[in-house]
Amino acid sequence: MTDLRVGIVGVGVMGADHAERVARRTAGARLVAVADPDFARAEALGKSLDVRVVEDPLDLIAADDVDAVILASPGFAHAEQLLVCLEHRKPVLCEKPLTMDAASSLQVVEAEHKVGRPLIQVGFMRRFDPEYAALKELLDSGELGRTVMLHNVHRNKSAPVTFRSEMIVRDSMVHEVDIARWLLGDEITRITVHAPKPSGLVGDGVLDPQLALFELANGTMADVEVFVNFQVGYEVRCEAVAERGSATIGLGSGVFTRAGGQWGGAMPSDFRVRFERAYDIEVQRWVEAAARGGIDGPSAWDGYAAVAVCEAGIESLTSGRPVDVDLADRRKVLG
Amino acid sequence: MTDLRVGIVGVGVMGADHAERVARRTAGARLVAVADPDFARAEALGKSLDVRVVEDPLDLIAADDVDAVILASPGFAHAEQLLVCLEHRKPVLCEKPLTMDAASSLQVVEAEHKVGRPLIQVGFMRRFDPEYAALKELLDSGELGRTVMLHNVHRNKSAPVTFRSEMIVRDSMVHEVDIARWLLGDEITRITVHAPKPSGLVGDGVLDPQLALFELANGTMADVEVFVNFQVGYEVRCEAVAERGSATIGLGSGVFTRAGGQWGGAMPSDFRVRFERAYDIEVQRWVEAAARGGIDGPSAWDGYAAVAVCEAGIESLTSGRPVDVDLADRRKVLG
Amino acid sequence: MTDLRVGIVGVGVMGADHAERVARRTAGARLVAVADPDFARAEALGKSLDVRVVEDPLDLIAADDVDAVILASPGFAHAEQLLVCLEHRKPVLCEKPLTMDAASSLQVVEAEHKVGRPLIQVGFMRRFDPEYAALKELLDSGELGRTVMLHNVHRNKSAPVTFRSEMIVRDSMVHEVDIARWLLGDEITRITVHAPKPSGLVGDGVLDPQLALFELANGTMADVEVFVNFQVGYEVRCEAVAERGSATIGLGSGVFTRAGGQWGGAMPSDFRVRFERAYDIEVQRWVEAAARGGIDGPSAWDGYAAVAVCEAGIESLTSGRPVDVDLADRRKVLG
Amino acid sequence: MTDLRVGIVGVGVMGADHAERVARRTAGARLVAVADPDFARAEALGKSLDVRVVEDPLDLIAADDVDAVILASPGFAHAEQLLVCLEHRKPVLCEKPLTMDAASSLQVVEAEHKVGRPLIQVGFMRRFDPEYAALKELLDSGELGRTVMLHNVHRNKSAPVTFRSEMIVRDSMVHEVDIARWLLGDEITRITVHAPKPSGLVGDGVLDPQLALFELANGTMADVEVFVNFQVGYEVRCEAVAERGSATIGLGSGVFTRAGGQWGGAMPSDFRVRFERAYDIEVQRWVEAAARGGIDGPSAWDGYAAVAVCEAGIESLTSGRPVDVDLADRRKVLG
Repeated sequence: MTDLRVGIVGVGVMGADHAERVARRTAGARLVAVADPDFARAEALGKSLDVRVVEDPLDLIAADDVDAVILASPGFAHAEQLLVCLEHRKPVLCEKPLTMDAASSLQVVEAEHKVGRPLIQVGFMRRFDPEYAALKELLDSGELGRTVMLHNVHRNKSAPVTFRSEMIVRDSMVHEVDIARWLLGDEITRITVHAPKPSGLVGDGVLDPQLALFELANGTMADVEVFVNFQVGYEVRCEAVAERGSATIGLGSGVFTRAGGQWGGAMPSDFRVRFERAYDIEVQRWVEAAARGGIDGPSAWDGYAAVAVCEAGIESLTSGRPVDVDLADRRKVLG
Repeated sequence: MTDLRVGIVGVGVMGADHAERVARRTAGARLVAVADPDFARAEALGKSLDVRVVEDPLDLIAADDVDAVILASPGFAHAEQLLVCLEHRKPVLCEKPLTMDAASSLQVVEAEHKVGRPLIQVGFMRRFDPEYAALKELLDSGELGRTVMLHNVHRNKSAPVTFRSEMIVRDSMVHEVDIARWLLGDEITRITVHAPKPSGLVGDGVLDPQLALFELANGTMADVEVFVNFQVGYEVRCEAVAERGSATIGLGSGVFTRAGGQWGGAMPSDFRVRFERAYDIEVQRWVEAAARGGIDGPSAWDGYAAVAVCEAGIESLTSGRPVDVDLADRRKVLG
Repeated sequence: MTDLRVGIVGVGVMGADHAERVARRTAGARLVAVADPDFARAEALGKSLDVRVVEDPLDLIAADDVDAVILASPGFAHAEQLLVCLEHRKPVLCEKPLTMDAASSLQVVEAEHKVGRPLIQVGFMRRFDPEYAALKELLDSGELGRTVMLHNVHRNKSAPVTFRSEMIVRDSMVHEVDIARWLLGDEITRITVHAPKPSGLVGDGVLDPQLALFELANGTMADVEVFVNFQVGYEVRCEAVAERGSATIGLGSGVFTRAGGQWGGAMPSDFRVRFERAYDIEVQRWVEAAARGGIDGPSAWDGYAAVAVCEAGIESLTSGRPVDVDLADRRKVLG
Repeated sequence: MTDLRVGIVGVGVMGADHAERVARRTAGARLVAVADPDFARAEALGKSLDVRVVEDPLDLIAADDVDAVILASPGFAHAEQLLVCLEHRKPVLCEKPLTMDAASSLQVVEAEHKVGRPLIQVGFMRRFDPEYAALKELLDSGELGRTVMLHNVHRNKSAPVTFRSEMIVRDSMVHEVDIARWLLGDEITRITVHAPKPSGLVGDGVLDPQLALFELANGTMADVEVFVNFQVGYEVRCEAVAERGSATIGLGSGVFTRAGGQWGGAMPSDFRVRFERAYDIEVQRWVEAAARGGIDGPSAWDGYAAVAVCEAGIESLTSGRPVDVDLADRRKVLG
């Protein structure tokens, strides 16, 4: 079996991470090219990994020696780049968000539907985290009865001062949106985003933490704390409550110390430490699926639904009221 | 120092527990009488503990050899019995609820205020639990910065079939109401009680679990799961999120086993196991305060506020909307 | 029922603790007198608790208004004081050690045997700790099969510079000796005390930590780390390994924090914090037993066996070899 | 960079695992051949992975299209196969044991030394487990001071009835031998293997569990429980005690449930579940080292030392006494 030839668009933190991953830790794949409008940055990475460097992302997507694409470009560039991937029938792993708004996301979904087979996978990597995967398996087994609600926590040590209230919804809470849809097995139909009095350690006017409530079509619910200036470290926790018990992931593991008057352990510093293995598994499985011409993970529809819920969430944050999510009819769109 | 002579009204589960506690495990107190309209039941208990038995609770309260009273009678009897305690200037430890509605609770508060000193302590025993007390102390120390929200969980193994949706608010959630007011240091001004699709293991029409949101005057918030048919055991958990970290209690302790393919421990079967020590400390400290003619714990006002919030909670559960809590002005009532 | 009138001999740290406990937190008991050759110190305590002060401990033991005695005097004084207690038929709770050597301990056992009923209880308070008690109950239930070994850890934050290698055996390891005999249900027949290269944070020549191995008559074993200069805090842990699983206590509980880059909790600072409740329960149950003229806890024989094992342990520490424990034949001594 | 062409000798459980790993999950490597005297078994695996099948392991080692070898053959075959690997200058990853006795292991070490560069890596995969690696890093950082001892536990759910007392030392305890040498940074100079009264759930005459004590040249010590019929699951735990604190790994992680009256989680069923990731990392890193002609992990000397300590351990188990480990002088052997 020949290796899948992968090109990467965008060489920021995530793109560089993925480049290293494909080049060094992924079986059955070969990194052949990287592209970035910031050509100097792309060149530095390309040289270190000994791969071709392309200035225009659309050229990379179209290149004959590129079998499949990873999009790690800024979100505003996704819509166009995804459509070019579809045009060239290239499987693509697209970092979230799918696109910047629900309307354009829906267009991508429809364009892919016309191609006739899934080519777009969205980078909700948590689904590949061994803990989340084990939780999903446990809930789906029915051993605990039907799942009735989730209690989720999403915390970052700190966020850049440019990180505004809406970005907390769009860039952080969006992961919880995907996890809730995935674990609870239905669409979110209403979202309320509450803002308690903000921590004094965040910038003026930034609503952090936030406390969101998701209501799903099947009557389940999820509450979600997002706190991007928690000071302590990176923490992602999920407790699923079912009819006969509950199951929690994200409680921490690793080395347990007794030192300095305390027992306990260290919090991971950021999401790349916490989800390193999830990214590895995500990319390995995507490579295998892409070699067969398809995907193995969250679909374009999943990307669209997440964008639509976050749009409603931002509206709720502003108005202080529950907002209904206005999602297209999946059967009509996907036939 | 002579022992405080205690009389107990109500000899159900809680009353019998307290009788045993005062008679056997409390220093500086002596149980002298028990009263219950169900005279046979009172007689059985009185005989086993070798104390006087009284049929009419009001007679017990008035008796010369009773220095202080524990009310473990049904809630609907509290209003009258409390007023008689006030009349006789007897310190009283009253199991929750203070009374059955906010209006009558406020009357009790006002009557006590006329006496000129606190005589009524309400049995929110969690404040005496060593874990809750340590949490309160940590939060008040400011070490973690200002507290911004609580995530609370309150679960029972199972509830009697007669336990209706409103009772979940009034009898279970009420503890969370008191804890939120106490830990967050302010009044609850708005409550929303959500009802996800109920567990299939509860009776028809019973909304269980419930997911409540408290908003406080100082801008803090609390979300609370109450699930009285959780099947697993009794669980009370509280995570306080502050500006520089979070603190959680109720994670379980005791014997940690590796057996039957699992690592872990046993859940307590019910609240008396979990809070046995809290009750002991509550009563020991109340005895010392009552011997000095006062109280050392939640006040009549705390009892009134809890009743008022629960009234609003029941309205929210019915209407599906946030309900403002209409509390009297504390400064006007208490001068 | 009239209160048991208790006298306390020795008003150092433990004696003062017990005095406060009997006076304020124990039902059915009344502190009537304290004695200490350091009369000024005894007087200070007696004044604060409003009880009689005696200079000569033997006078306190003999006093008519003293029904029962707590011995918190130095170990070298125990032998004589215990014999006087026996002479006056006074129930006595004796802090460990029973006496300073196995020979004198055996004399005390024999003297009590002549009295015809147990009057001496030894202060191995861990047996009353709720965690140890639950562990004992689990092991005795047979649920995990037969117990085969223990792994124990005993750590102090730091020890005084005067704390020599032998004292680590005699004063710290002795608790593990009692726990092993109690949990494993037999006598220790051989002990080996190893000394790894000492921590650089202890005084010259002090062998700390130590690693002991106990072999019991029934073929079970226990390994025990004792480390009295652990720097971190006070820690007592016990894992019992049985045929079908293991059970551990002492893993810590209380408030669980996420702060300063860490998750975890605080270690207790010393044994009084960790075992406060064990002491309370020990004394409460002893008061009830003493009121009936007897004991309810570790016997004089248990005290004797612990002293004999520690004597062998000190010999092993010196010689570096296993040392057999030369215990009297229990059936011959106790008939 | 062209892929490293790997051949695997032995297609039992471990060999088949490694074959799958190299073929599917390892970057930079290609599985080209498998060999096993049981040709039918080798053929089945070769067909499923589409690689060449060889009957004689020595032919595979010598083959021109094999750059590097993984030895997963029975231990008794290792000595000869390793020498052939050396002869052909093929990097080899050899599952433990290096050979069946210390004398032949030393010959292998000497033969490799004559080659002039390390070609043999021994499969002590725990060194690659992220938890062990983090523990090693913490201890080496000096943050906790000098390490003074280890408390280790090694438990299997159950062992085949053919698993005899000596095999517990040779096949299970050997991992602890390597871990102790690695973490404590010196050679084991004395070993004592105690046998408490065996569990009633093991075959007649089998000494299980065992409790071993390792003494190292630098004065540190380790106690190790090995219990291969623990009934519960697979458990490997290591607590390192240092001058300023302790650090523990192997406490379990993953999904935390509250169900069936219990809180906790599942024990892994066997070592392949627990150490799956360690094997992946071990092989990935070995592939990278082998491509450069060398090793990146435990050396032939480490394999020899482990065999020598286990020989002494078996002698101790038989005699009941401490046995000195008679190791060759490393500087003389390796120059």
